[in-house]
Formats: sequence, structure tokens, C-alpha cells
Amino acid sequence: MRVVRRFQGCAALACALAFVAVAGAQDSALPSWNEGDAKRRIVEFVRAVSDSKGKDFVAPADRVAVFDNDGTLWSEQPMYVQFVFMLDQLKKAAPQHPEWKSNPAFQALAAHDKAALAKLGQKPILELLGIANGGMTVGDYDKSIREWLKTARHPKYQRPYTELVYKPMQELLAYLRANGFRTFIVSGGSVEFMRPWAEAAYGIPPEQVVGSQQEVKFEMQDDKPVLTRGPKFDFIDDGPGKPVGIYRQIGKRPIAAFGNSDGDLQMLQVTTAGEGKRLALIVHHDDGQRESAYDRESHIGKLDKAWDEAKSKDWIVVSMKSDWKKVFVFEKEKP
Amino acid sequence: MRVVRRFQGCAALACALAFVAVAGAQDSALPSWNEGDAKRRIVEFVRAVSDSKGKDFVAPADRVAVFDNDGTLWSEQPMYVQFVFMLDQLKKAAPQHPEWKSNPAFQALAAHDKAALAKLGQKPILELLGIANGGMTVGDYDKSIREWLKTARHPKYQRPYTELVYKPMQELLAYLRANGFRTFIVSGGSVEFMRPWAEAAYGIPPEQVVGSQQEVKFEMQDDKPVLTRGPKFDFIDDGPGKPVGIYRQIGKRPIAAFGNSDGDLQMLQVTTAGEGKRLALIVHHDDGQRESAYDRESHIGKLDKAWDEAKSKDWIVVSMKSDWKKVFVFEKEKP
Repeated sequence: MRVVRRFQGCAALACALAFVAVAGAQDSALPSWNEGDAKRRIVEFVRAVSDSKGKDFVAPADRVAVFDNDGTLWSEQPMYVQFVFMLDQLKKAAPQHPEWKSNPAFQALAAHDKAALAKLGQKPILELLGIANGGMTVGDYDKSIREWLKTARHPKYQRPYTELVYKPMQELLAYLRANGFRTFIVSGGSVEFMRPWAEAAYGIPPEQVVGSQQEVKFEMQDDKPVLTRGPKFDFIDDGPGKPVGIYRQIGKRPIAAFGNSDGDLQMLQVTTAGEGKRLALIVHHDDGQRESAYDRESHIGKLDKAWDEAKSKDWIVVSMKSDWKKVFVFEKEKP
Repeated sequence: MRVVRRFQGCAALACALAFVAVAGAQDSALPSWNEGDAKRRIVEFVRAVSDSKGKDFVAPADRVAVFDNDGTLWSEQPMYVQFVFMLDQLKKAAPQHPEWKSNPAFQALAAHDKAALAKLGQKPILELLGIANGGMTVGDYDKSIREWLKTARHPKYQRPYTELVYKPMQELLAYLRANGFRTFIVSGGSVEFMRPWAEAAYGIPPEQVVGSQQEVKFEMQDDKPVLTRGPKFDFIDDGPGKPVGIYRQIGKRPIAAFGNSDGDLQMLQVTTAGEGKRLALIVHHDDGQRESAYDRESHIGKLDKAWDEAKSKDWIVVSMKSDWKKVFVFEKEKP
């Protein structure tokens, strides 16, 4: 078919041009990263798998990179952003649910009791949210998220949450894509909470967002086909759920994985268990001044087992404090 | 960031070149389609949504097209290909499962009793398969599919099943992509049965295959992280399940949908219920000579309610007999 052949010809030309441009500009990639081990190892990995004559070459179709979201691509302190949204939603819905007063998850949320929330885990809280927005059409739910994101502000930075994206990670995503990678989010959060802003913030389209899944069912309302939300979660994309989400939605083993907490451990394990060159990276939150300092003892984004495994397997551990010139996209460069 | 900016520059150049090439070659697109209403309406739709100055313009990010697989992109007669594979798998596994002798689904499969199979629906048969391959790692299951596809032959055409792809639909997929669309499969079949060959046959990568999902769980075996298959299906991507699968995995309402049976009705309804220009197309199997002739009374690929709706809503109904010059990719052109 002529159309296709001609188009492919153009695409090949573009690839060649892009390759020249990227190769030439390689050294200026990742400008918000300080020179050091982390940056050097990232660049070495990308060069190795992109070098068609090298022993570590990986075909572009297999260059799949997966990123955790909370704490890896944007801030998760003092509370997962989706939880802040949920709390607002639950507060709104509470008068219709007097039975919640005795629910431990609602009590912990209402009291901002992080220790209790951490003990409970994500499940009971996601279930409460499921009840709160059960029956809504997916369109109405999407609207409520977009509205909230417009007006909500982070308590510390007083900025919209969507500005709390890490500049160095944004650059890393773009750098990988410029080198033929496909980039995916794989998050414990709900897909619908990330999709409205992931494309603008990260360059990641909705179909490349993998996350937890609430029940959704098809029905006809006034002769119009709609999808409505059920009260339960069908799938929690966290911890051992992450490799399952990757298998279901991506269908390929990633060659690079990026996380920051124990919830990412299994995703990093599955990624590095594949044959050939692999990249595993953990963002360590050690910058209490520009962001937050937390790891083994944290209720949110606990980094304990995954840190031990990172050390024993020589995964890259990024120090936000010393590896990053900038942290947030809105931030000025370090003097 | 310089790398990215340069790369985007190249991409834009490629788009411009591709656009010129595509616009010039537009008239030679879809060479296996006869001139007629179906082809004309497809081309008109694609031009309308791609014309950045027209009232029907759709941004490339929203040009999502979804295709049913069985009976829409490849042959489904005399039996869904996945069922043939399953039958072979079940026969192999039967000695370990004497209890199946009294199972109606196994009896119907073993007797090739299409009427009984149609009555039972997909669910009990998928459940049997779930038991047969439960406990296997996803890697081993993938191997068994690839091995089978290499050796199995279609009873009528005596060719590998992967050659039973419809040439005009292959062209249509490429034509849409050349015009900025992203193309997805949305099938009642299992994702793992399509992914091994969908890229070569259709140009559709694994993450753009939406389908039914069997239970999968993460575990460590001999210190290696693996995913193993459970006995049940978590999700059946058929009928009202298709819009759910689209919502979960694609996260956007398609602007074009292509099917051939009642199992595609809800997908077509949801697609056409969106605002703006939409395309809904049904492949009608009316070519008993080159392929098979079946519709309202068929046990496989029954086209009844969706046909009525297509007529009342003026969706495109493609006659394989008169709209297609070629049917299969291996076939010579009609004299």
C-alpha cells in the first residue's frame, strides 16, 4: 500500500534526523541532574540499549519503562494527593453516611491520623471512596476530579498539586522517549485520578497509565449508554499488584523501572529478573529542606525492604539532595 | 531541555512530510476496497477529523479507533481460533481431569457441538481453560500459544491461522495510523492469545490489545519473581464488557469503532454516543465463496441486534462480497 510505505519512509527519515539530534545533544540531557553516579548510570544504560551495534541493544518495541507516580514523579507528603481529594469527597458525602462515624478508616482520615492510615493500608480507604462515588457516571467523576485539581492547593507550597512534579523526572521521561522508549505510569492510585493531568505533566497519554481499578459497569440511562461506578475496587495496583497491572495492560516485561518505596519492590524485581541489560532506580527522599526527608519509618512512601534490596543488588539510589539541581518544576535553580 | 526540543522539531518535520505524502496518496489508500459507499464514507470521515481547519477536526491525541478481532480483523469460522487452541489444550489436560466428562462445556467442545457452545456462551468454556492452564507461569503459557500457532492449520484453508487476516482491514488500520489515529484491538478473546502475533499481523503493539483477563498473581519461585495464572477469569471483555475494557485500558472514548457481531454492539453505542463526528462500521459476512456467509442465525459471530441498530442509525455496513476486492492477506486479487 503506497500511503503506508511513503509514510514509513518519512518516519524513518525522522528517526535518522532525531538520532543525529539526540546523539549530538546527549551530553546536555537531564539538565536538572547533577553530574554523578546516578546520572552517569542512567545515560550509560540508555546509550547501551539504544546502540544497534552494541551487545546490549534492545529493539525500540521492547524499550518499555515504568514509573511509580506518588513519591517518584510528584510529591506524596504530607499525604497522597488522591487521599486529600478523597477526604474532601468523603467529607462532602459523610452526611449521607452516618454509619461511617464508626468506620476506622473514616475516623483516621477525618483525624488526619497518618499512623492509623498507614496501619490500615490503602484498601479500606479506597473502599470508602468507592461507596462515596458509587453510582456516579465515569464522566461526572472525571469532572469532579478536574474541578478539585483546579482549586485545591498543597498546604506547604500553596500551589496546585499538579505543579508538585519533579523536574528531573520530567526530564528523564522525555529523555527516555527521545531515545525510543515508551513510558508508563504504574501506580497504586486510581487510573481516573491521574489521567486528567498526566499528559500535560509527564507527556504520558491515558492508555499508558496503569493503576487501581474500581468496578465500572455499562448501562443505558434514558436511552444513552453510560458507564457507572460500583462501590468496590476490582484491582489494587500496588506491591505485588504492580507486576500484574503491567502484565495486563502493557503485556511486556519492562527493561527499566523507577520507584521510591516498598510498594514498588515487586515491580523492580520483575523488571530486573528479565534477560539483558536492566535499569532499576529508587528515588530517596533525603531533602527535608526542598521537599521531605523520609524512608524506613515513614507512614507514607515507606522505603525499607526495597532499600535493602537496592543496596544488595546495586540498583541506582537517587539522593534528591545531592543528585538533583532542582526538585520541582516551579523551582529556581540551586545557586 | 535541548534534546527534547530538537527531537520535537524533527518529529514536526516528519509530520509535515508525512502529511504531504498522505494527502497526495489519499486516493490510492485502501487498494483492496472497491469504490463504493463504505470506502467513500471511511475516507470522508478520516479527512474530516484530520482537517485542522474543518469543523469536525479532532486533535490527534483523541483519534482513538477500536477494532473487534474475531470476525472483524480475522476469520472466526468454523470456530473462534482461541477455542480451537483451547480444545487442543483441554484434550491434552483431560486425562488429569476425569471430572470434565460430565461438564457440559467440555462435552460440547469435544463434540464440536456449535449449537451447544453458543447456548453456553463463552464463560463456562473460558473457565475450563482457566482450570487447564491454572498454575502455569505467564511465560510458559505464552510459549504454548506461540508453539501452537506455528503448527496449527485452519481446516478449510490449510494455512496458519495468523494468515487468515483480512487484507482490507489491515489496510484500514494502516490508513488510520497514517492519519494520526491510535488503533486498538478490543476483543472477547484473551489478551495473551492475541499479543504474540497482533504486532506483525496488524501493527498493533501488546499494550494496545484489550481483551479478557484471567487471574494472575505474583509469587517468588526459587527466589525468582514470576506471575502465575489462576483458574478464574477476572474480566470478560465482551458485549457490555467492551466499553468497560476501553475505559480501563484506553481511558478515552473512541471516535471510531469496528465490529461484526452483537458482541460489539455496546462498544459501537458508546463510541457513537460521544460528541462530534463518529464512525461506526460493521463487517457483514456475506461472502460464502471466499469466506463464510452468516449473520442472524449464526452460533458464532451472531449479527442480529447490532445489524438492526446499524440500519436504524446509519452505521456503515460493509459487504465482504461487494466492498472487498481481496478478503485474506494471502489471496490473489479478484479478476
